[in-house]
Order: sequence, then structure tokens, then C-alpha cells
Amino acid sequence: MKVAVLPGDGIGPEVTREAVRVIEALDLGISLQEAPVGGAAYKAHGHPLPSATLDIARDSDGILFGAVGDPDCDALERHLRPEQAILGLRKELTLFANLRPAKVFKGLEDHSALRPEVASAIDLLIVRELNGDVYFGEKGFRTAPDGSREGYDIMSYSESEVRRIAHVAFRAAQGRGKRLCSVDKANVLETSQLWRDVVIETAADYPDVTLTHMYVDNAAMQLVRNPGQFDVVVTGNLFGDILSDQASMCVGSIGMLASASLGERQTAHGTFGLYEPIHGSAPDIAGKGFANPMATILSAAMLLRHSLGKSAEADRIETAVGKALEDGVLGRDLGGSAGTTEIGDAVLERL
Amino acid sequence: MKVAVLPGDGIGPEVTREAVRVIEALDLGISLQEAPVGGAAYKAHGHPLPSATLDIARDSDGILFGAVGDPDCDALERHLRPEQAILGLRKELTLFANLRPAKVFKGLEDHSALRPEVASAIDLLIVRELNGDVYFGEKGFRTAPDGSREGYDIMSYSESEVRRIAHVAFRAAQGRGKRLCSVDKANVLETSQLWRDVVIETAADYPDVTLTHMYVDNAAMQLVRNPGQFDVVVTGNLFGDILSDQASMCVGSIGMLASASLGERQTAHGTFGLYEPIHGSAPDIAGKGFANPMATILSAAMLLRHSLGKSAEADRIETAVGKALEDGVLGRDLGGSAGTTEIGDAVLERL
Ligand SMILES: CC(C)[C@H](C(=O)O)[C@@H](O)C(=O)O
Ligand SMILES: CC(C)[C@H](C(=O)O)[C@@H](O)C(=O)O
Repeated sequence: MKVAVLPGDGIGPEVTREAVRVIEALDLGISLQEAPVGGAAYKAHGHPLPSATLDIARDSDGILFGAVGDPDCDALERHLRPEQAILGLRKELTLFANLRPAKVFKGLEDHSALRPEVASAIDLLIVRELNGDVYFGEKGFRTAPDGSREGYDIMSYSESEVRRIAHVAFRAAQGRGKRLCSVDKANVLETSQLWRDVVIETAADYPDVTLTHMYVDNAAMQLVRNPGQFDVVVTGNLFGDILSDQASMCVGSIGMLASASLGERQTAHGTFGLYEPIHGSAPDIAGKGFANPMATILSAAMLLRHSLGKSAEADRIETAVGKALEDGVLGRDLGGSAGTTEIGDAVLERL
Repeated sequence: MKVAVLPGDGIGPEVTREAVRVIEALDLGISLQEAPVGGAAYKAHGHPLPSATLDIARDSDGILFGAVGDPDCDALERHLRPEQAILGLRKELTLFANLRPAKVFKGLEDHSALRPEVASAIDLLIVRELNGDVYFGEKGFRTAPDGSREGYDIMSYSESEVRRIAHVAFRAAQGRGKRLCSVDKANVLETSQLWRDVVIETAADYPDVTLTHMYVDNAAMQLVRNPGQFDVVVTGNLFGDILSDQASMCVGSIGMLASASLGERQTAHGTFGLYEPIHGSAPDIAGKGFANPMATILSAAMLLRHSLGKSAEADRIETAVGKALEDGVLGRDLGGSAGTTEIGDAVLERL
């Protein structure tokens, strides 16, 4: 079993370090190979996703990813910016299905900006498409009809792209509450019209799942008003970016949320994927030793479960994190004072 | 002074009726001309925005708009659907600047899903561009590289479009807290890169306003975590659609929020514009007599202020609505039992 470890920028390295300690403590004979990515890779090798890093990632059974994003790189040409590393990995490795579960952790009901009774009802999974949409269409600059400069990006989805992610979402719904809400903007966008048509078509294969549709503006409202109404939400790359971050904040603990980006390839024991905390590189607190590593540790648990077939070990990690929380081991993001390694130690002790 | 009244679909007619009663009670010598729009216009005249309606709207000093949207019309071709009426009015009449203030009304602090201390800090204005973006670019269906059908929509903004809305937003910030946050997705989209560059350029004319930038995914999180941090937010058509609905729900009373869509043309006493409640047509409760007309009444107040130069009368309407609320005149959306005309009566009494 080979795992590629890509720590990246900002707090990426420090939180990844704790997740690696947890994986190593399980003593599963996993070979871990680290490689540079993002702004760190640009500074060392002139490219945010060096080909050696891409090879290590491709050659693995699963990728543990920290975060990319570095203000030093803001002025670089687009193709050299840190974000291109994660976009490149998603596209090159066909990691098309982003799974972002959002659920309030026991003991953290009071950390959401939502009223506790609203927040504690949240138990949803956002399935976000990652390989298409306005992210990967043709883009550039041109002259507008009035002679001024214009920026443009083509948004699009093909039937096969929508069908592929729809199947993932329907299967996920089958394994949960059997309700799927597809989010689009079909009243304005043809991309969304096609999305909606294909999702409806795909539904025929899943008669046990109840399918509904919601416009994205309404979905953003409903995620505030009554997020407990959702089971599985499926949506495109751009709307998924916005709604999944919104949902995670509804839970109130962005330092706690993991995500999986699954591909098409099967490994010996599961599905090839990339696992990352959703919090990002947080350059303002990088290197200070108090970033919360729990989201990355939980991402490692998802990696064990989905890519390596080690569900029991994944459960052990998740239980240990839950226990640490219940024992009051809280990072600053949750109003506590535990530092990065201290939280790592606390999880290890409870493993 | 001529006002075009376009009631539209669903609860549009019933809420517009109350706003018209309020305008008439002020006895300002305004001539009101009603015209069909949306699904209602399609059913009567075969088009959601008949040319006679467009002429009446164009010929007015301001438009009072109810809502469009009718499930009966979902299967129609896109150009015949009710939504095309509002999109057509915005584009044909160059209504490029959508202003959506969000603030918690006195006495309604407990109606938000956000904790009261978070919700009561909200006092922001979203300035949404309405004439560009992926809404109005080329769109359609074509064959994808893999041979399957593909839907596409071109997103774009030109320098002149961004500059025009940026000036509106900076001026709005000068009249408020002098802080402007521009929301984009410049780490992925060239449209956003151009947006950001032009906003930064425009800032040179407004040295007294503090400009910040935020990615849209982060903005959706921050609107939940700490919406009190925002003063004026400026963003494109699509992100504005999502974020302004989200913000309105943070306030907790979508039946209370008005909006103005301003054009370039000056009227005798102000700026030509369209005024509408943000709640939409709500077909499920249409005709039942309990839709809350307050948002439409408040939209009429915005019309008087921005297009007709009647600020004192606008203040009177807003004060009357505030008093009615304080006296416990609450619609079902706010947990009360007051019906549509009852709320209209209550506002009229307090005028
Ligand atoms: C870093 C950025 C390009 C990325 C995205 O927009 O997909 C991030 O926001 C995410 O959600 O993983
Ligand atoms: C009805 C629809 C086309 C419209 C939009 O997306 O602009 C609405 O959601 C709004 O915000 O006014």
C-alpha cells in the first residue's frame, strides 16, 4: 500500500505531519512518500505541480493532501499559481467526485453561528463534480464589442460528465437517507438544463431514491434556514465550491472537516482518491503551532476507508478524534487552547 | 410622475396590490399604469414580456415589480419562460445595478436561523451587477469531444461593465461605512481576474473607501460565520444571485426585503429603476391571502426615494412598516397570523 503525502503551503505541512504520525502509529505497513506541491513546489522547483510529484501521486493508492495557497505567489501567471496544483491533480488523475460530509460533532453544537437546534440537525453530504464546469473550459481575455478588454470563461457540462457524478450521488444516497437534491441554475443556464435532464434520466436506475431539484440561490438560503432538510446534495464544480464551504461553516468547525476526491481507478482494496482538509492553507497562522490538525487526521481516516480498504482502522481514528473532543481537547478555532502537536498527541493516546 | 406596475405571477399580484394602496394613499399625483408580465403575460399574450409591457416600463419613471415564476411554464422553451421577463427588463432597460440591503428589523432579531447576536450585527448592502456575466453570454448545446451532448454558457465581463458597477459600489460605500468588499473567484476565473483588476483601478478615485477582496467560497462562509463584518459587498451577476439570497436569509425575514435595480437614465427627480421584493412568486401560497406584502411596500418606498425624489414619503412608509412590526403585525413567515390585506391596512393606518 502506497500513500503519497503532499503537505503543500501554509499550515499544510504542520497539520499533515500529525496525520502522518497517526497513520504510522497504526503500523499497517503503508509506505509513505512525500512530495512538494503548491507554492512550496514553485519556490523549490519552478512549478506548483512538478512532474515528479504528479508521478508519485499517480503511482500511489491514495494521496494525503495538506493545502495550497501562498500570498507570495498572487502575482504569478495563472498557470504557475499554487491553486493550479490541486486543479491539475484533480484533472490529471480524473478525481471527479468530491465528497464533503457535514455533520455537527458531539460537543461542538454551540460552535456554529447557527442556533444550536438548527445546527445540530445538520447531517448532509455534498457531492461536488470536480473535473468540469467553468473551472476547466476555455478561458482568456479578448476585446469586447465596445472595444474594452473582456475576461471570459466557458462553463460547460457534457452528458457523460453529469451521468458519472450522478451515479456516485445516487449510490451515496442509497447508503444514507435515500434523498438526493440536485442543485443547478436551470432557469438561466443551458449547462444547468443539461445537468438537470441527465440527473432526471439517471434517476430511473435508482427508484428507491427520492430526487428533488433546487436552484442554487434557493439552496444557499435553505442551507441557512433549515440545513437539516438535506441528505445528499449533488452539484457542479462552481456551485459545489460555494455551497460546500457554506455548509461547513454552518457546522461551525471548519478546522474539523475532511473531504475525499475520488477517481475512476480501482486500487487493490478500494478506489483511488485524494484526501484533504477543507480549510485551506491559512497563511496568517502558518508556522505558529496552533493550526487544528483534526480535519487532516480525519482525511487520513477517509483515505484508509475508501482507498485502502481499512475501515476498522478508519473507525478507530474517528473514534479517537471524537474522544479527544469530548475530553475537551480543542484547538483555538473551537475556543480552546490545544496546539497542533498537542492535539496530535491526544488523538494518538486515544487510538 | 409615471410608475409602471407589473404584478406578475404567484403572490406577485396580491402583494403588489397592497403596495399600490400605500402609494395611492400618499396622494402624490403619481399615475400608475399596470401591465402583464411573466407566466401571466405568456398565458394571456403568448410572451412573458409583451412589447406593450416593455413600452409601458420604458416610458415610466420607475417600475414596481411583483414576481415572476410559474411551474406551469417549466416545460416551455427557455425564451418563453416567466424568468425571461425579468431578465429581459434588466437587459433592455440597462438596469445594471441591483442594490440589496440586508439589515435585521427591530423586533425580528429572533427570526434568523443565526444566533441572535450574530444576526443582529448584520447591516450590509449587496451591490450585484445585473447586465453581464454568464447570464447574458452566448449559450446553447453542442457536441462534446467524447461525442455526447454538452450544454454551455459563456461567462464574461468587460472593463466598462465592471467599471460602471464598481463606481456605484464605491459611491454607496462612501454613503455608508466606507468599506467595500469585492467578491470574485480570481484564483480560477479570468472573468474574475479582470473584475478584480478593474475594481482595484477604480479604487484610485475613492481614497476614502477601504477596499478588500474575497473569494466567493470564503464569502459564503463568512456570511454565516460573521456577517456583521461586511459593509458594502460588490459582485457579479451569478455570485450576487447566490450571496444576496443567502444574506437575506441570514436576516431571517425574506418576506421583508426589498431591492432596487437602477439604470443609467436620469428621471426628472432621480434615477430610473425597477423595484421588487426579493422573495419571488411563491406559487405554493399564491391566492391564499397570507403572503407578506411588506417587502413590496418597502420596494415602493425605494422607488419613491431613488426614482421620484420623494425621500420624505419613503421615510414615512418605512416608519409605518417599522411601527406595524413593533405593534406585532406579523405575517405567517414571521410566525404571526396577519393576512395580506390586514398587513396592508396596518401600514396604511400608521402612515
Ligand atoms: C483552491 C481552489 C482552486 C479550490 C477550488 O475552488 O476548487 C478550493 O476552493 C477548493 O474548494 O478546493
Ligand atoms: C428569476 C431569476 C432569473 C432571478 C435571477 O437569477 O437573477 C432571481 O433569482 C433573482 O435573483 O432576481
